[in-house]
Amino acid sequence: MSTAQKQWKVGVAGLGTVGSGLLKFLAERPDFAPAGGRVVVTGVSARSRSRARPVDISALTWFDDPVALATSPETDVFVELIGGSDGPAKAAVEAALKAGKPVVTANKALIAEHGAELAALAEAAGVPLLFEAAVMGGTPAVKMLREAMVGDDVDSVAGILNGTCNFILSEMESGGRAFGDVLAEAQRLGYAESDPTMDIGGFDAAHKITILAALAFGCAPNYAAAEIEGIEQVELLDIKLAKDLGYRIKLVASADRSPDGVAVRVHPSLAPLSHPLAQAGGALNALFIEGRRIGRIYIQGPGAGSGPTAAAVAADIADVMTGAIRPVFQAPAGKLKPFVAVDPSRRVSKAYIRLLVKDQPGVIAAVSETLAESGVSIDSFLQKPVEDAGGVPIVLTTHAIAESVLIDAINRMEKLPAVLERPRLLRIARI
Amino acid sequence: MSTAQKQWKVGVAGLGTVGSGLLKFLAERPDFAPAGGRVVVTGVSARSRSRARPVDISALTWFDDPVALATSPETDVFVELIGGSDGPAKAAVEAALKAGKPVVTANKALIAEHGAELAALAEAAGVPLLFEAAVMGGTPAVKMLREAMVGDDVDSVAGILNGTCNFILSEMESGGRAFGDVLAEAQRLGYAESDPTMDIGGFDAAHKITILAALAFGCAPNYAAAEIEGIEQVELLDIKLAKDLGYRIKLVASADRSPDGVAVRVHPSLAPLSHPLAQAGGALNALFIEGRRIGRIYIQGPGAGSGPTAAAVAADIADVMTGAIRPVFQAPAGKLKPFVAVDPSRRVSKAYIRLLVKDQPGVIAAVSETLAESGVSIDSFLQKPVEDAGGVPIVLTTHAIAESVLIDAINRMEKLPAVLERPRLLRIARI
Repeated sequence: MSTAQKQWKVGVAGLGTVGSGLLKFLAERPDFAPAGGRVVVTGVSARSRSRARPVDISALTWFDDPVALATSPETDVFVELIGGSDGPAKAAVEAALKAGKPVVTANKALIAEHGAELAALAEAAGVPLLFEAAVMGGTPAVKMLREAMVGDDVDSVAGILNGTCNFILSEMESGGRAFGDVLAEAQRLGYAESDPTMDIGGFDAAHKITILAALAFGCAPNYAAAEIEGIEQVELLDIKLAKDLGYRIKLVASADRSPDGVAVRVHPSLAPLSHPLAQAGGALNALFIEGRRIGRIYIQGPGAGSGPTAAAVAADIADVMTGAIRPVFQAPAGKLKPFVAVDPSRRVSKAYIRLLVKDQPGVIAAVSETLAESGVSIDSFLQKPVEDAGGVPIVLTTHAIAESVLIDAINRMEKLPAVLERPRLLRIARI
Repeated sequence: MSTAQKQWKVGVAGLGTVGSGLLKFLAERPDFAPAGGRVVVTGVSARSRSRARPVDISALTWFDDPVALATSPETDVFVELIGGSDGPAKAAVEAALKAGKPVVTANKALIAEHGAELAALAEAAGVPLLFEAAVMGGTPAVKMLREAMVGDDVDSVAGILNGTCNFILSEMESGGRAFGDVLAEAQRLGYAESDPTMDIGGFDAAHKITILAALAFGCAPNYAAAEIEGIEQVELLDIKLAKDLGYRIKLVASADRSPDGVAVRVHPSLAPLSHPLAQAGGALNALFIEGRRIGRIYIQGPGAGSGPTAAAVAADIADVMTGAIRPVFQAPAGKLKPFVAVDPSRRVSKAYIRLLVKDQPGVIAAVSETLAESGVSIDSFLQKPVEDAGGVPIVLTTHAIAESVLIDAINRMEKLPAVLERPRLLRIARI
């Protein structure tokens, strides 16, 4: 092979969980060079040089400035593991691409928010920009969409892309515990960050599904167009009631293409208990891809963690070594379709609506009448005594109906005298 | 991109389901060239030129001899869809590689039986030899193991790799029908071949798991070392009894690496009902990959059919166009580890044993005593009246035990006067 004797000098910026995991991996596997040659880490950069790390970096050239590392003549491949959509991560990746260096990154925010412009830089320089580790950690969702599904037309992708939320929802159900309780424990155990907003607010999942949408549909990534709802408002009561109806609540990230445009969204959603997404518990990630020719493909695996994510970065480095040149997304940056977002109010979903009402006669009649007036057709109805619920919960599921109609019905029901709080709306996942 | 204006001339040998599907795909997608350039089919070859086909081939250059197509100056990429481990498929692939042409094939038998020597030819010529469509149709198991898992050490892969068998077993269970009945219907519907031996005998699954083992472990593929048992002997009675015990019978193909060597096998096996493999019904294919760093990854999708398989072939053609050079298996052909097969009698499994006995006192005592003498420890025991079983079925599951001990116990039980036929042994899948 022509690359047999080549030495690939890798510069690694960011030495947190993934960066340390990568150095550990390369130390354990000095033979790691699937296509021949050798991989050598020559330089590193991080915020603190002296911080205790699971790997010894004393023999590596230290760079205070990741941009200097990115453009160093000693860097053949630049690996960006700093994180953040802007700031030093973006500056260093841009500098590396402009200097004609292949870039490997695990940075979902950077790719979701600046992917199109970075793809243009990479393609102008004729170098790869790879980001397998940005989505689903060690589970190769990016490679599947970018490479394996290239002989198909993908119409939708949907899945569980945030392990922290999935862990919290699973624990709420199995332990019968409230959201705040489980979150606090997850933070103690290190499963959730001290500022958990990116995860529990759905923003992390939204970054990831934005990237997958661009790969699947050949449109420019458009994070700003994503509809995002996190799991902060998911109550134990709804987890229990959903289960009584045969569903489990999951934070589902989805991207759908229709003649009207593209819809990218993250919502707590109900998945039927028998569905693989409902059964992917704990910190697992899972994804369905639906292509016109291939049909439905399902992939499931660990979505985070040092080992899996570092393995994904290593696989990207191996891809750089093969010399493959392909578009960063599904088509060259200059030919990516514009991202036309579907108007959310025109979306049609089946819904789960939960009300908390006073225990008095005539309430169900009033609710049913209001729904009928709004034009909402009911699929199932459940009233169940629940202790400590602070009222009587009534839960109903609807047939598929426009979002605008649902919101109107909820606004009307909220005003009924017997309704104690704003009715809770959750979508039933279209999976 | 440097390949922007390049025209890729593709020669397609074999115009059955997959070949016709590929021509149809390329006709529908004249823009198919993810990295730029154009893909044009210039020549075709098949057994019969005049046979009715869903695509018009009159404008394409016809070759009676696939070797001539493979080596034609008008062929940049040779696509082999003839099938069969030897004969014209092998001759044409060898000729193409020797002529320095990239090869894409869907031929599992060819790769499983001659993969190492073909890899050596491809790597000597510096051209890719790709076979995504050979395993799991449109579901990219090959790419996952060859590329995405290259940053990991994989210890086992296990799954359902033959859709025909999975369809037959699913139908037997759901319809309460015997094997022969369902097979005949599958043949009528075109889900099974008129000679179904390759599928139902487990040979097709064995070809596929042989290829996955080579990709996963970096050893030369060794089809001759695979242990193969098909589904012909699976009785409806066992499907029912297994379900009573909480299992579903699936044809499981597995490859495991241990310090003793590699074990590649195909057996009807019991999967717990709650396990994803048990839930993959109908013609689905499914696979678990277990890596030391990444953990467990699961992938599921359609394993056959014109659309999915042609899409996989198209994705391989796109990979050729990227210019990527990597080893055909996990390591260059010259560095593939020898395949050391584990002695099957040393294998340790949990087992399901079903006996058919006379309805008389003392039978259970005799069976239990025989098992104790052989050193088999029982995990669960079930005796159940079953109509028309021709005797009383007794079923038991064992703790993990060496295969040689199990066989010995079965030989002894067969000789008991109350035992009506040779006890049936099925493995409980280690998944």
